[in-house]
Amino acid sequence: MDTFLLNEQLRNFLREDLEHGDITTDAIFSDQESATVTLRAREALVAAGLECVAARVFQLLDDRITYSQPIADGQRVDRGHVLMTINGPVRSLLRGERVALNLIQRLCGIATLTRQYVDAVRGLKTKIVDTRKTTPGLRMLEKYAVRIGGGKNHRYSLSDGVLIKDNHIAACGSICRAVEKAQAAVPHTIAIEVETDTLEQVHECLDCGVQIIMLDNMDLNTMRQAVALINGRALVEASGGVSLSTVWGIAKTGVDIISVGALTHSAQACDIGLDWQ
Amino acid sequence: MDTFLLNEQLRNFLREDLEHGDITTDAIFSDQESATVTLRAREALVAAGLECVAARVFQLLDDRITYSQPIADGQRVDRGHVLMTINGPVRSLLRGERVALNLIQRLCGIATLTRQYVDAVRGLKTKIVDTRKTTPGLRMLEKYAVRIGGGKNHRYSLSDGVLIKDNHIAACGSICRAVEKAQAAVPHTIAIEVETDTLEQVHECLDCGVQIIMLDNMDLNTMRQAVALINGRALVEASGGVSLSTVWGIAKTGVDIISVGALTHSAQACDIGLDWQ
Amino acid sequence: MDTFLLNEQLRNFLREDLEHGDITTDAIFSDQESATVTLRAREALVAAGLECVAARVFQLLDDRITYSQPIADGQRVDRGHVLMTINGPVRSLLRGERVALNLIQRLCGIATLTRQYVDAVRGLKTKIVDTRKTTPGLRMLEKYAVRIGGGKNHRYSLSDGVLIKDNHIAACGSICRAVEKAQAAVPHTIAIEVETDTLEQVHECLDCGVQIIMLDNMDLNTMRQAVALINGRALVEASGGVSLSTVWGIAKTGVDIISVGALTHSAQACDIGLDWQ
Amino acid sequence: MDTFLLNEQLRNFLREDLEHGDITTDAIFSDQESATVTLRAREALVAAGLECVAARVFQLLDDRITYSQPIADGQRVDRGHVLMTINGPVRSLLRGERVALNLIQRLCGIATLTRQYVDAVRGLKTKIVDTRKTTPGLRMLEKYAVRIGGGKNHRYSLSDGVLIKDNHIAACGSICRAVEKAQAAVPHTIAIEVETDTLEQVHECLDCGVQIIMLDNMDLNTMRQAVALINGRALVEASGGVSLSTVWGIAKTGVDIISVGALTHSAQACDIGLDWQ
Amino acid sequence: MDTFLLNEQLRNFLREDLEHGDITTDAIFSDQESATVTLRAREALVAAGLECVAARVFQLLDDRITYSQPIADGQRVDRGHVLMTINGPVRSLLRGERVALNLIQRLCGIATLTRQYVDAVRGLKTKIVDTRKTTPGLRMLEKYAVRIGGGKNHRYSLSDGVLIKDNHIAACGSICRAVEKAQAAVPHTIAIEVETDTLEQVHECLDCGVQIIMLDNMDLNTMRQAVALINGRALVEASGGVSLSTVWGIAKTGVDIISVGALTHSAQACDIGLDWQ
Amino acid sequence: MDTFLLNEQLRNFLREDLEHGDITTDAIFSDQESATVTLRAREALVAAGLECVAARVFQLLDDRITYSQPIADGQRVDRGHVLMTINGPVRSLLRGERVALNLIQRLCGIATLTRQYVDAVRGLKTKIVDTRKTTPGLRMLEKYAVRIGGGKNHRYSLSDGVLIKDNHIAACGSICRAVEKAQAAVPHTIAIEVETDTLEQVHECLDCGVQIIMLDNMDLNTMRQAVALINGRALVEASGGVSLSTVWGIAKTGVDIISVGALTHSAQACDIGLDWQ
Repeated sequence: MDTFLLNEQLRNFLREDLEHGDITTDAIFSDQESATVTLRAREALVAAGLECVAARVFQLLDDRITYSQPIADGQRVDRGHVLMTINGPVRSLLRGERVALNLIQRLCGIATLTRQYVDAVRGLKTKIVDTRKTTPGLRMLEKYAVRIGGGKNHRYSLSDGVLIKDNHIAACGSICRAVEKAQAAVPHTIAIEVETDTLEQVHECLDCGVQIIMLDNMDLNTMRQAVALINGRALVEASGGVSLSTVWGIAKTGVDIISVGALTHSAQACDIGLDWQ
Repeated sequence: MDTFLLNEQLRNFLREDLEHGDITTDAIFSDQESATVTLRAREALVAAGLECVAARVFQLLDDRITYSQPIADGQRVDRGHVLMTINGPVRSLLRGERVALNLIQRLCGIATLTRQYVDAVRGLKTKIVDTRKTTPGLRMLEKYAVRIGGGKNHRYSLSDGVLIKDNHIAACGSICRAVEKAQAAVPHTIAIEVETDTLEQVHECLDCGVQIIMLDNMDLNTMRQAVALINGRALVEASGGVSLSTVWGIAKTGVDIISVGALTHSAQACDIGLDWQ
Repeated sequence: MDTFLLNEQLRNFLREDLEHGDITTDAIFSDQESATVTLRAREALVAAGLECVAARVFQLLDDRITYSQPIADGQRVDRGHVLMTINGPVRSLLRGERVALNLIQRLCGIATLTRQYVDAVRGLKTKIVDTRKTTPGLRMLEKYAVRIGGGKNHRYSLSDGVLIKDNHIAACGSICRAVEKAQAAVPHTIAIEVETDTLEQVHECLDCGVQIIMLDNMDLNTMRQAVALINGRALVEASGGVSLSTVWGIAKTGVDIISVGALTHSAQACDIGLDWQ
Repeated sequence: MDTFLLNEQLRNFLREDLEHGDITTDAIFSDQESATVTLRAREALVAAGLECVAARVFQLLDDRITYSQPIADGQRVDRGHVLMTINGPVRSLLRGERVALNLIQRLCGIATLTRQYVDAVRGLKTKIVDTRKTTPGLRMLEKYAVRIGGGKNHRYSLSDGVLIKDNHIAACGSICRAVEKAQAAVPHTIAIEVETDTLEQVHECLDCGVQIIMLDNMDLNTMRQAVALINGRALVEASGGVSLSTVWGIAKTGVDIISVGALTHSAQACDIGLDWQ
Repeated sequence: MDTFLLNEQLRNFLREDLEHGDITTDAIFSDQESATVTLRAREALVAAGLECVAARVFQLLDDRITYSQPIADGQRVDRGHVLMTINGPVRSLLRGERVALNLIQRLCGIATLTRQYVDAVRGLKTKIVDTRKTTPGLRMLEKYAVRIGGGKNHRYSLSDGVLIKDNHIAACGSICRAVEKAQAAVPHTIAIEVETDTLEQVHECLDCGVQIIMLDNMDLNTMRQAVALINGRALVEASGGVSLSTVWGIAKTGVDIISVGALTHSAQACDIGLDWQ
Repeated sequence: MDTFLLNEQLRNFLREDLEHGDITTDAIFSDQESATVTLRAREALVAAGLECVAARVFQLLDDRITYSQPIADGQRVDRGHVLMTINGPVRSLLRGERVALNLIQRLCGIATLTRQYVDAVRGLKTKIVDTRKTTPGLRMLEKYAVRIGGGKNHRYSLSDGVLIKDNHIAACGSICRAVEKAQAAVPHTIAIEVETDTLEQVHECLDCGVQIIMLDNMDLNTMRQAVALINGRALVEASGGVSLSTVWGIAKTGVDIISVGALTHSAQACDIGLDWQ
């Protein structure tokens, strides 16, 4: 993640929680008192965002904040494990506490869930990728957590990938006409992906050299036929209603990529505590 | 919610998903083609954010967008129900689709879960309230969804409520000293709330006229004793590890308020589809 | 004050005075010449904003700026007293001079006037509080100056306090109905305040458990009756047309709080000079 | 004033007062109720900012707001006069009320005071001008109020005027050397002004073709001598400690311009009421 | 172009030219006078940005502005041709004039130059594409002008395309190792492009399935060999020192794409006048 | 240039090129690898923006970046000369490279062209000045480059200079009436400039004490007559269609100032390379 861009986001989150200040803390603490806190996993999790998010939240508030012994992002830890120790002015620790926790609980949740999907297809060539079903305002962070969990990213936004869907096709009359229009308009550095519902559509994609074919909500049998039909002439992405219990079966059909909206839209926040020493 | 403030947030969310534009759509559609879409519940849910969020997202992109037959926020609908019909330029419908869905799926999720908690204590005087465990950047929207679900809001930020916790008390030497410092510093329009772990602390709160006493992670028996002890001299808030299965029992202890972090940090996004007509 | 939030405001003020640069100074000084200046009180005043505002203005322009011997905020100084000595590049001293002076002259003016009101009721229990009659864009700074002067703050904004006025009451049909609606809607951490013009209204407030009763523009006799009537069952705030000559009499009626718009809307800027050594 | 730029400022002021919303009003009024209010002068004043500021504040909140019978900016009205009638949703009237009043009370205060200075020199050629001693963040508005009051503006910022002061001169060794450096560096469209304390300095200014000579804190006799000496070869500006009681005497010395910091730093906010019909 | 995003950019450009207002125009015109102006080509050019940029600049200043008879973007016009007629308040026409002209002169310049390159390779399959050598802050507009001129866009930013260069390769030890690392990390929707200087590097690219091979600064003979070698297994992009006199020869080598930095970094602004009727 | 203001602009340029990050570089380099690069002139040029722009771009991305041996802005260097050496993390060097180059190539281009104009009139008193024909968003930087090249700046924006043109004059009925209105409205620190097409208009300007007379698109003979007529009573600015081949002749007519739009609107970007060591 670009720390350059990240700082700006984190400042906005702090502004939301601070509004015009922490009136409780300012009534009680001076600017001089300091303390040490530990972030601790209250359940098993895959760490995500410790240094680059949690530590930074505090340091944006106060450059006197230091931290030590951070668990590396991507590492799996057990319940009870200390994730990081942070030291500095009490005022700033209390101000940053909720924003830092809200963020890393979510990011660790996404990394942990992603890891489960990745582990579920381990041994197969299939890659687990995310979608644009991210929390508004948190896309950069959530897509980072997916990568930390071992997943890959699908396109970031509407501007860095082409995905031709039903209504695009309908408007053009055929897949090939839609692909042609897209190829004429978008940078050559961006591959063309088409969403298909039937084998006929897969056929049509192959006819016009589509680089990525999405099999949308197909049953396993149809997917297998599609993979055989495509036979390496395009990347194959399975999409739609993927769960931890179905992902292995889908991967076994031979698709290259499985995109999983649940990675971001359904990950549960991990339970992480901040303990005062 | 203040539409004045809301527009600014929604614009930022659109910028995140658009970056420099929707390259697929611009390759295929002109600015003149229009269409009608429906938002449809794919599971039973409590509606939240239909007009004020989803419709507005589209209208911020394009003032030619219109909508009709919106379900009122707060209304419970069954699976399959149409939530709203939206009409306008295809380009703008495709541009706004993901942001609108990501937002209302989340907001309906929160409203629906809140409604479950509220229903779970129906018949008792206890109020269900949220916490600051909201998604960074979405607090205004998520607290709105809690209200729509029938819950109430706890303080919005660190600046509009006083909550004296362990470390504040420790720094002052006693609850009463901390309360005194807070009363001297904060506006008289803001009630003082203190987090307590023991009945001794509850006693001390009563000695110094605390207006709201939070019973933090107490067992049901201790809560009952605390309620008896307080006996109407302060508002009583139960907090910590509340779930749908425990909330009735907690409410039965006689507490006035139960704050539930899960309303926002653990609500599952509802499944809502956008169908092209 | 939150330095985190303050920096942003001060940068905007500097942008206003700098536009595209200080053309006089850049024509004459290089980036290397440095100087020392003193801020000096040209009238007796209560210091406010010296380190946290004046010094910061210069340091935001140039991290080579240092300062020494600052008078502590809240300290009363006589005419001629040096408030602070600042050293650094001439270019940055000249750039920041007007913004720094404009701000602290205003803040010291508010602190000094507030101190006069506070002194005027010394010995009585009554607190002097401010209002929302602050300079647009300067509320955080001006409310800080009120606290430095020994006053307290009323609600900060429309979102962190409830004040039920004439038109709210009229719309509901009665005070109790308005209070009920407010209690149902706002966080339990925020006390309900009602503005009253008559003793009948005070009665009605007591009937529905209003926590703060504002006596608006009542004469001293009516205030005394209201205080007797309320008899500790609510906080009593006097408001309306308070001046240094009337504040003692109002306080003697026994009200808890006197809100004084003049603290911010009518404080005269103090005369403070910046002298080059 | 540029409405383009003004809207941005007014939105920031509204954000400051609204934070996350008007919790009292939202608890009591729906979005549908409407009302009419009048702005009324509670003292004699010169109107400033009625349509361009007050009306706009409300319209930025809600495009259903309308207004009628506005007094033209610059018109003098007596106590009790209705300044403008505003109609629209109660929610938006209550939200905008304080920001609108805080602004126009200040702007009318400046226009009214400026008019007094302008009237005090009526019949003479001398112009009354303002300074950069404006409220941080309000310069565009306050300089507008000065013009409305009949005054003229001095330079707006450090970037659109040259004012060579003591320390600039000291750094260069002589006035002429400083002027030369400024002329070489700044656009030819900007006149060079030099601050002088003595007749010797005035002489030196004339030697090097200074276009505007500021007589800083000179006594009346010295000013008269300076005016005679300059004899039309430069514009003459008197500055320093000008008050309503001294301004006529200063103007009679024959200076072209008198700059008065008090216009903005010491104007008292006018008393203007907002009455609900 | 996204009008949603464009408005924000245009407002910033207007702020730059307006600072605190147009002092000449405000001195002379009221808000009521209106006029008609025409934009006229003073040299032959390809139109770009007339409605979406020039007209919008004026309409952002004033919603009373209307326009008629705009030449469609992409149309070639001769010297003297009227490009568009604009009507509205004089104040707003004068305020927007320079920004509108500065922008469309540049955009028409880019479209016109691009058209020359496109025409120079007409009849061949080769596409002319732009680079990231755009004016900072104007990328969205300049890449639009390239498309209007008949060119295509290369990647928009560092985040929507992969271009592996010398130092990336050196850091990895080989092209294949660098490609592997990129494939593992970036979305599958983004094609991998590698910059090559020699035929050996081209070979290596083919070995690891690179999708786009850039021939950087190769002579025509080497390019021809590279094209033969690649033989359709990858897209071939020629880059480096392309001019109008060399582009035909390069295209004749059989490359698919020629990227031309000159389209944006060396296009001369077209001469367009704004005439008052 | 004000580094305070500059940083903000440079951050926006970096955001444009980075969007959500440099995906190629992040795939290949860690945050720890560092390198050294040199900026080298690939043609003879006048340096502009090396430390204040190029070095700063990198340092805004990463405070570990250092640089050495920068050529001073304004110095003329030959082809092949090293302009500056920059050292630091590879990730940040690659991220900043394009923005830094795009900027300094343009700034050096402007400084170099300006120097040519300045040299072309060397020996005469005439000054070369720029116009408002700058790239939108780059005015502060481009006007800096003009000064570095030895030119002077005309007014910066519509707010810091008065230029009365045809339509202003037409609206007032006469030059003198327009001048009078401007003098009455604008700060006395700003000189009045009038655009003239004929000697009659020059006469009229002299009658009403205009300080700067622009001779717009006059032939050399008329210019000479105008200079003779004005005879030192106003600054004389020649404007319109100035080129390197005509500038000497224009200067010889005796005008004080020649404004040259080409300095900014037609300067070619210099060729500057960034070489990895």
